[in-house]
Order: sequence, then C-alpha cells, then structure tokens
Amino acid sequence: MRTQVAIIGGGPSGLLLAQLLHRRGIDAVVLERKTRDYVLGRIRAGVLETGLVSLMEEAGVAQRLHAEGHVHHGTRIAADGEMFQIDIHALTGKPVIVYGQTEVTRDLYDARQAAGLRTEFHVDAVQIHAADSDAPHVTYRQDGVEHRLDCDFIAGCDGFHGISRQTIPLSTRREYEKTYPFGWLGVLSRTPPVHDELIYANSDRGFALCSMRNDNLSRYYIQCALSDHPEDWTDAAFWAELRRRLPADVAANLVTGDSIEKSIAPLRSFVTEPMRWGRLFLCGDAAHIVPPTGAKGLNLAASDVHYLYNALRQFYEENDPEGIDRYSERALLRVWKAERFSWWFSGLLHRYPDQSPFDLKMQRADLAFLRDNQAQQQAFAENYVGLPY
Amino acid sequence: MRTQVAIIGGGPSGLLLAQLLHRRGIDAVVLERKTRDYVLGRIRAGVLETGLVSLMEEAGVAQRLHAEGHVHHGTRIAADGEMFQIDIHALTGKPVIVYGQTEVTRDLYDARQAAGLRTEFHVDAVQIHAADSDAPHVTYRQDGVEHRLDCDFIAGCDGFHGISRQTIPLSTRREYEKTYPFGWLGVLSRTPPVHDELIYANSDRGFALCSMRNDNLSRYYIQCALSDHPEDWTDAAFWAELRRRLPADVAANLVTGDSIEKSIAPLRSFVTEPMRWGRLFLCGDAAHIVPPTGAKGLNLAASDVHYLYNALRQFYEENDPEGIDRYSERALLRVWKAERFSWWFSGLLHRYPDQSPFDLKMQRADLAFLRDNQAQQQAFAENYVGLPY
Repeated sequence: MRTQVAIIGGGPSGLLLAQLLHRRGIDAVVLERKTRDYVLGRIRAGVLETGLVSLMEEAGVAQRLHAEGHVHHGTRIAADGEMFQIDIHALTGKPVIVYGQTEVTRDLYDARQAAGLRTEFHVDAVQIHAADSDAPHVTYRQDGVEHRLDCDFIAGCDGFHGISRQTIPLSTRREYEKTYPFGWLGVLSRTPPVHDELIYANSDRGFALCSMRNDNLSRYYIQCALSDHPEDWTDAAFWAELRRRLPADVAANLVTGDSIEKSIAPLRSFVTEPMRWGRLFLCGDAAHIVPPTGAKGLNLAASDVHYLYNALRQFYEENDPEGIDRYSERALLRVWKAERFSWWFSGLLHRYPDQSPFDLKMQRADLAFLRDNQAQQQAFAENYVGLPY
Repeated sequence: MRTQVAIIGGGPSGLLLAQLLHRRGIDAVVLERKTRDYVLGRIRAGVLETGLVSLMEEAGVAQRLHAEGHVHHGTRIAADGEMFQIDIHALTGKPVIVYGQTEVTRDLYDARQAAGLRTEFHVDAVQIHAADSDAPHVTYRQDGVEHRLDCDFIAGCDGFHGISRQTIPLSTRREYEKTYPFGWLGVLSRTPPVHDELIYANSDRGFALCSMRNDNLSRYYIQCALSDHPEDWTDAAFWAELRRRLPADVAANLVTGDSIEKSIAPLRSFVTEPMRWGRLFLCGDAAHIVPPTGAKGLNLAASDVHYLYNALRQFYEENDPEGIDRYSERALLRVWKAERFSWWFSGLLHRYPDQSPFDLKMQRADLAFLRDNQAQQQAFAENYVGLPY
C-alpha cells in the first residue's frame, strides 16, 4: 500500500491533519491503535483557541462546533475568597469556544466517513522504517495480518506513549521535562455549571477548576495528592472539598449530583527537540505535554498541525521544501511559549509542598498584579486565546 | 529633648522624610549611628522612579538631580548573544533618572544643613521605648552622654540591621525571606559606560549588568559565587568575565580601566509584616529588602516615605489618624508588588545551581515572551518606572 502521508494516531491532531490534507487533494492514511469508540470515550477538556477554530473551518468541520459550542468572552480567577474576571474578548477582540475534545474528534471522524476516507483501526506492532531516508515506510499488523505502508512523509500524532517519538534516536534529540507534585481529581456530572465562565481557583487547600461541557454537564477538578485514588473520594467528599476551595458566594450556587466519571490525572510539562527527524514529523502530545491549567494541550496540537499542513501543501503544491525544513523550528517557537504559559499559570494557582511562606506571598502578589494591572491582563488574555501562529 | 517625629537612621529615607516634614512645619530629629562622611561613602545604585523624583521635588531638593541626573528612556536586555530594548518612556510616558543614591543623600544633607536643621550623628545604644503607648520615647548615647528624646511618633529608617524592626515583638510580626544562591560582584571604574542605557544580561555564565553613574564613571556587576571574595578577582579577571557575558558587539565596545571600588553583595528578598507597631513605623530597608535587579530598593523606601509623610500630615494638619492607621496596609500593598517584580526579574536573568534543563527553557521562553510581546513589555515598563502610589 502507498500513500503520500502516513499519519500515525487517530486522535484529533492526526484526524485534523488528514482532513486538511484531503481538502487539498493530498492523500493520507490514518493508523489508529484503538477503536473509534475507544477514542471517542476519552474525556478531555475543550477550550478552543481561535487558531484551532479556523483550522476546523478550513477543514470544513466547524458547523456543529459553531452551533453547539459555547462562546466564552472571559474567564474568572478566584483567590482569597474573592473573584475577578479577565475580559478576554475585550482585551484581544477574540473569544474562546468551549467545546469538548471528544466532540472535535467525533466531527472529524464523521467528516472522514462522509468523504469515504478509511481509517485503519486496531492496528498494532506499528513500526516506522527509514524515516531518515527519501523512502520511508510504516509496517503494522491488523487482524493478525502484516501490512506495509510506503509513503513520502510520516506524521507522528500518536501521543506521549506512541512509537513515533521513540523512533527518533535519543542521540539526535533532547527531552525536557517537569513533573508536578500533585494531580487533578476530575468529576463529570449531569448538573448545570456553577458559572457561565470557567473559574480557576487558588485556595489555601489547593487549586480547583469549575468547567463545563454544556448547560447540563459540568466538569470540576480539584488538586489532589499523587498518591490518591479516585475510589478514595466519595462524591460527597469531592463536593465538600470543592466547595471549600471556592469563594463562598460561588460555593453557595454549586449544584451537585452523582459523578458520571471520576479520574485522577498527573500534571507534566514535556518537550522533545527537534520535532522532525528526516521525513518523520511529530505533532501534538507525541512531542510535548502541558499541564492542563489553561487548556493548551489540544490547541498546541492544532498549532503543530497548522505548521505541518502548510509545510506539506508548500511541498506538494509549490515543490518547495522550506516549510518542511523549518517545521521543527516554527512549531517549537510556539510550543515553548505555550509551555511557559501553562507552567506559569499552574504555578500561580496550585499549592506546592515545598512552597515557603515567601513563595506563597509571591504567588499572591502575582495574583494581585494580574487582578490590578491592565497590561498583565492583556498578556494573559493574548496567551489564553492563543498566541498568533 | 522633645520632637514630634523621631527619625532613626540618617540614610536617604530618614532624611527625605525629615525634609518633607520640615517643609510642612512638622518637627523631626534625625539620629544616625555613623558619621555623615560614612553615610556618603556608601555606594549604591540609583535608578530613580518618577515617584521618588516627585518627592524630591516636593522636598525642594531636586535641582541638582534634574541638572546632573541622566534621563533614561529605555533599558536593554541581552540574552543568547542578542539584545533588545524596552522603550520605557514610549510605553509609560515616563522616563527613569539615573542618579546615584549617594547624590540623593548628599542633596538631602545639604538641604538639611541649609535649613539649619541638626542631625545627631554618631549616636549609639539607641533604644525605642513604649512605642505601643501614646507617649513613646527614644534613648541614645552620644559622646558618652545619655540622651532621651520624647516624641509623638518614631520612624524606623535604620535599615535591615537596625534596632527599629527588632523592637517590634516577634509575637506581633512575621518575617518572609528568600536568600539567593549567588552574589553580585560590583566594580566601579572611571571609564565611559559601554552603553547609554543599562544592560541587563542573561548568559550561560550567569548574569551581568552594565550600569553607570555619569559619563566617565561606570558601574558593572557580574553574578558570582557567595563564597567568592573581591580579592579573588583581579581587575583583568573581572573584565574578561564581564566580556564573556555580553553580546559580542557590546563587549567589543567595553572600555576597561582600574577598579576604584570592588565589592560583593549577597541577594536577598525580605519583608516584615506589619510595618507599624503602635507609634513606630518602619520605612525602607528596616522593613524590606529586594534583590538589586531592577533597582527597586531606594524607590521602595521612597514609597514608604510617601505613605508615612502623608499620614503624618493628615494627622497633624487635619487631626485625622486614618493615614496612620492604614500606613502598614498601604505600604505593604506596594512593597509586595515591588518584591514580586524584583524576584521575577532576578529569576529571569540569573543562573541558579538547581535549575533543570526545563527550568532554563522556561527562563528563555520568559525572555522571548518579553522580547516579542507588547503587553508583557508594557507590564515590565510599568513596574520599571514604578507602580502608582
């Protein structure tokens, strides 16, 4: 089998890249280790930057997003029992759209199906060969049968644990990592959200986040110990702890209910450099992880897709390898800025076990400066809606 | 002896407060442990914020500052061999004035002398009594003679090691501190400055700062180990190391010469809360220390003086204790913001022994964001010229 671009990973970045390439007549094959239902079962935050929304429009898959997504013009930050708004739209001229990552993925699968494009599900033993040559290929097994896929380029969209990054010899790349000494305990419940904007809360008891999927589906998180297990937390204990971390007037409005999902995620900052090895290009979580504070993960994957899509277009339509050659440099420039924002925003809101009383004062001063200073709010807002590609 | 305000410490904050009070007919006595010449021999940075300049004008001592001070409209930041400017004046409408702290102090002593006001030099065994009562007094020894000074209020302007802060019982105050794992090795030389604006440099070898006193008096600093001694560093070694930490085109313009002063200072962040105990008010270094990065120390002392001066005026002229009662809260609000800026700016520029490769990447991303983002430059500039009182 032969294609122009072999895309490893059928998550949102692989699917978005495939859809964009399809619209330009560039052929791609998507290989996914799991099933479609499994991929669509993964629950992820969805605060979409303008850049991702534009890419979805360009891919022709933004109808439902615009119909059902919730436009958020600002976000709230709570600390010391008080809350302030950052008016993102007023500061930047742009809103963000709250729309689940699962829905983005579903729209992309539907579009792929409608276009008659195949996705190879349930593949395993995926291997990348000769990526540093002019004739790379991918082998994989599906239903017990070995396959070989020859291609011009390989897009590694297979996430942090995927094979793509690991294919690049360690001698030619460098990994940067920070792990955080806490996790996020998340609960999904069929209850109306406590507020119509996201609330990021700093409290003496640790971080909390009030988010939502739609008018009757709320997503809440609290900072927890890495040693905690979801089953340690009854619903009642979760709601009680969440309430303690919110300003009293917000907590009073909290509508609680049975959790329909409860899980703990660790927080990590990670980047590998470079993001290209020969004809293999890393995209999204395969190359970098951000802590979820500020919801940059999916948006950063979209920014990689933007650079890679345009590089491939430039190559196929103009016979110009410039975009290909500069992909890693361009993608990483934006990656590091988003890594910085996610790291800083995490630091602003969480309790760290090694924080000294002075460090806590610096955190509060940082919060006060953000609350009181227009320029700092402007810089925040520009990061929140997404820095320009 | 009796006065309205006993001022402990004849450094710039005590003298400025005394001069301002004198202009309003409020009587003050200044007690200084050292001699005038000793005080004027201390070499300190001098980058004056607008707020301090206005206070000097209000005190009637700004003539020489305006005649001889150097107006700086911007500052430079160097990293990775490149340099960019932050156009402070364009961003805020205000410049800063480079004018040595020693000169500020000299102008204040001259004004004090011209007004026929006495300063008690060379006092020792200073003790503060009954500060938490309505009738405080200060005792001290001068030329072997014991003195008692009765007063309404006491201004503790006697620096970090002074008696004023230590007079406040530890049970009623709390100290916040951070020490930094490096020092600044500073050299003063009769050479023309390498640049007409200050250069703050981040390099793989550590921080460097190019500053100046006037057209033929340069002040340079390099980050050094806390275990270093000035005598370990020959002039030649200092200049060679400074050159290595500057962009090549800047280093090429560096004019070197014999050092006329060479010293090492540790870096510290420190705040005590509250800044008032009964009728004792802490001002400047007695209450807080900032690392010198960004030159906030003297300016922060001036901001305390502003709040205390206006509180005392309000008390004596309007018989209203509101300013007195809110002094600590008002002063600290601004103190913490300046502490945050100095801490952040230090973190942006220095090498720390425990920095991971990821931490270094965050530092570079922070520098890149400051270089590339207008809002971030705006927030920086507003801090650099001084947040509003």
